[in-house]
Amino acid sequence: MADYREMWKELGMDVETHDQLCEVLPMAFTDVYLSQKNRPENMGYFDFVVSEIHGVRPAELVKAQKENGTKVFGTFCVYVPDEVIFAAGGIATGLCGGSQFWVPGGEKVLPTNTCPLIKASVGARLDGTCPFFKIADMYVGETTCDGKKKAWEILGEEVPMHIMDLPQMKRRKDYKAWSEEIVEFKEKVEEFTGNKVTEENLAASIKMINDKRRALERLYSARKNKNIPISGKDSLLISQIAFYDDPTRFTEMTNKICDELDKRVEEGVSVFESGTKRILLAGTPLAIPNWKIHNIVETSGGAVVCEEMCTGTRYFERPVDETQTTLEGQIDALAERYMGINCACFTPNNARIDDIIRLCKEYDVDGVIDVNLKFCNLYDTEGFLVERELKKAGIPVLGIETDYTDSDVQQLRTRVGAFIEMLDR
Amino acid sequence: MADYREMWKELGMDVETHDQLCEVLPMAFTDVYLSQKNRPENMGYFDFVVSEIHGVRPAELVKAQKENGTKVFGTFCVYVPDEVIFAAGGIATGLCGGSQFWVPGGEKVLPTNTCPLIKASVGARLDGTCPFFKIADMYVGETTCDGKKKAWEILGEEVPMHIMDLPQMKRRKDYKAWSEEIVEFKEKVEEFTGNKVTEENLAASIKMINDKRRALERLYSARKNKNIPISGKDSLLISQIAFYDDPTRFTEMTNKICDELDKRVEEGVSVFESGTKRILLAGTPLAIPNWKIHNIVETSGGAVVCEEMCTGTRYFERPVDETQTTLEGQIDALAERYMGINCACFTPNNARIDDIIRLCKEYDVDGVIDVNLKFCNLYDTEGFLVERELKKAGIPVLGIETDYTDSDVQQLRTRVGAFIEMLDR
Repeated sequence: MADYREMWKELGMDVETHDQLCEVLPMAFTDVYLSQKNRPENMGYFDFVVSEIHGVRPAELVKAQKENGTKVFGTFCVYVPDEVIFAAGGIATGLCGGSQFWVPGGEKVLPTNTCPLIKASVGARLDGTCPFFKIADMYVGETTCDGKKKAWEILGEEVPMHIMDLPQMKRRKDYKAWSEEIVEFKEKVEEFTGNKVTEENLAASIKMINDKRRALERLYSARKNKNIPISGKDSLLISQIAFYDDPTRFTEMTNKICDELDKRVEEGVSVFESGTKRILLAGTPLAIPNWKIHNIVETSGGAVVCEEMCTGTRYFERPVDETQTTLEGQIDALAERYMGINCACFTPNNARIDDIIRLCKEYDVDGVIDVNLKFCNLYDTEGFLVERELKKAGIPVLGIETDYTDSDVQQLRTRVGAFIEMLDR
Repeated sequence: MADYREMWKELGMDVETHDQLCEVLPMAFTDVYLSQKNRPENMGYFDFVVSEIHGVRPAELVKAQKENGTKVFGTFCVYVPDEVIFAAGGIATGLCGGSQFWVPGGEKVLPTNTCPLIKASVGARLDGTCPFFKIADMYVGETTCDGKKKAWEILGEEVPMHIMDLPQMKRRKDYKAWSEEIVEFKEKVEEFTGNKVTEENLAASIKMINDKRRALERLYSARKNKNIPISGKDSLLISQIAFYDDPTRFTEMTNKICDELDKRVEEGVSVFESGTKRILLAGTPLAIPNWKIHNIVETSGGAVVCEEMCTGTRYFERPVDETQTTLEGQIDALAERYMGINCACFTPNNARIDDIIRLCKEYDVDGVIDVNLKFCNLYDTEGFLVERELKKAGIPVLGIETDYTDSDVQQLRTRVGAFIEMLDR
């Protein structure tokens, strides 16, 4: 790995503590990823990005800030329209939040009964062990859950924070309200960057992000084949990197691996043995480096063929309408697309159950694992309805709850293994 | 107690299971309430109401339904404007949710990591052990927290449910959005009751509910005196009954006890020994029969002089503007009043901290106990900021988390006792 310690110091990070993370991550990655057989060649790019996740992309962001005065916006959620940020010459980036390493830092200020994703995010910021949190000039929060809503008040004491109030229901007027939130966000971004959002630059950024969505859609489509040309783990890694990477380069590299996957499909190449059970994961997001469930499934006789998650279909399905020619029309099109995401933060949210059942057909799924990050009350409560309806539809389902620790791995392995074995009958 | 078993059976309740609750409640009430010395005479009314809480008021509601076709609306939250319901000839009532008795029923369908208030409410409905839940023709929910938002989806499978989307922030446009929600609610209530809401009947119901607020304000004012004429427990009981009783009768009876309290103040009568420490409770609501913390405080050398809670100041402070003469003006006035409540569901919610500090002065408070119902992530997270700011303001504060079980009573007694003793120094 290149030496980024000078940059980290300049960013005001706690470099000594951060070193501990740098020591363990490559081992985890080697164990989970590099041990796989017959990986697509073009995973090389993504392996490289993740191996320098706190270096190479942060260095690009710092360079853009220093050389061009570019503003970087840190975001936490798939409802925030990156298009607006890029249109104004800003850069949107994901933040840190997928490792137990950051959780104790979050627990200093947040209740233990908070989901690990939020605790890790806040800990990563407060402990100074995440370059993205230090680089971002502004954070963009939303009102998608109780835990995040209140965490903004703590994070906002350190960094400028803009909050978008996502409606909690999906009536027609709620789409309009979200459209207004996007207008307000646009004004904030314009003020902060000093650049105007125009029909032209917004059209370009809508196309750019749609291209990214289409590339991910293509990646996921490859997984629909009988012979699965790429593992769930590798697909997850690509989905995770989508939140951080330069969108245009990411699209290019994802399309490149898709070319390779298409060839594999043509040739009938699978990375799984015949008879491997096809699993869909539904539920809460899996942030880098949370590869726990995929690793358990794919070393227990299963293949993850689809993630109905924010790090999955909720991120890329349904492109934004590109035919609008006025700012107003474009913003309404953004509102329409983003409000179409079916997150458990809405009441009711029956369309998510329809999504899961549809995806089960599209990906020819043998069974669903409904994964809940501990203390996510929204997905946990909704899980009761999801699992009931899947059973009614004749789809086998296993509900599991987990966090970022390793303490439940053996127990999960037993349960997941038994579930997959049961699918054989 | 009069025999209401026939009514309960007719309501489709599980009378045998309910009998178990009827057996234990009077004992709890006797222990906590009737053991107090020198209670105001006019507590007799409230003692009677609570002794027949599942009988006398439910019987009135059933009578109104049968004889006048009155519609009963069950509500869960202080943001729902009762004024609209009463204006249309409906009756608003609180539901059950304050006892551990109902919790296991809720846990059958909800995550264990849900707050006891929500679990108890859902359990009371599903187990058929609460007459109010069986009587209500419609439930009115809101989007104040993750747990409730998702619980509506389960409750809504049994009973017509109307949900009001409370904004999650307090910008000017959010007041307008809440006004629009009230208009939509009015239309729903009109459709459901068959009665129109007019300027006249809405003015009358605004006055009626304001009178109730003013009576409670009067009750709380009495507690501001050096000689405290009524215990915190008794005041809490009155606050709790406010959610169920006929508003006009409740106002009359509350003013009656206030007359008695005024006399006590004149005569320098206190129900506490001189030197008893004055405690403000802040935090999550205390539904009937949750008297746990008050009982601990008031048997540990403290007097609860104020509750900054939904069962407390958040329920009655600031009457609705009565000078509006158009429906539109009245509804905006309702929106203004209700949006003025400072619940932790908003981000940010700094005004709540200002409220607590103001109340500490008004009620001459020696120390604050910040009470959180277990798994209420909103108040728990906000508690970090509340406690930090109170300490900065030089106000002693103790944060506690509890549920409806008795298992932590001894531990709480030790902590609360030590806190109150510390206030002596």
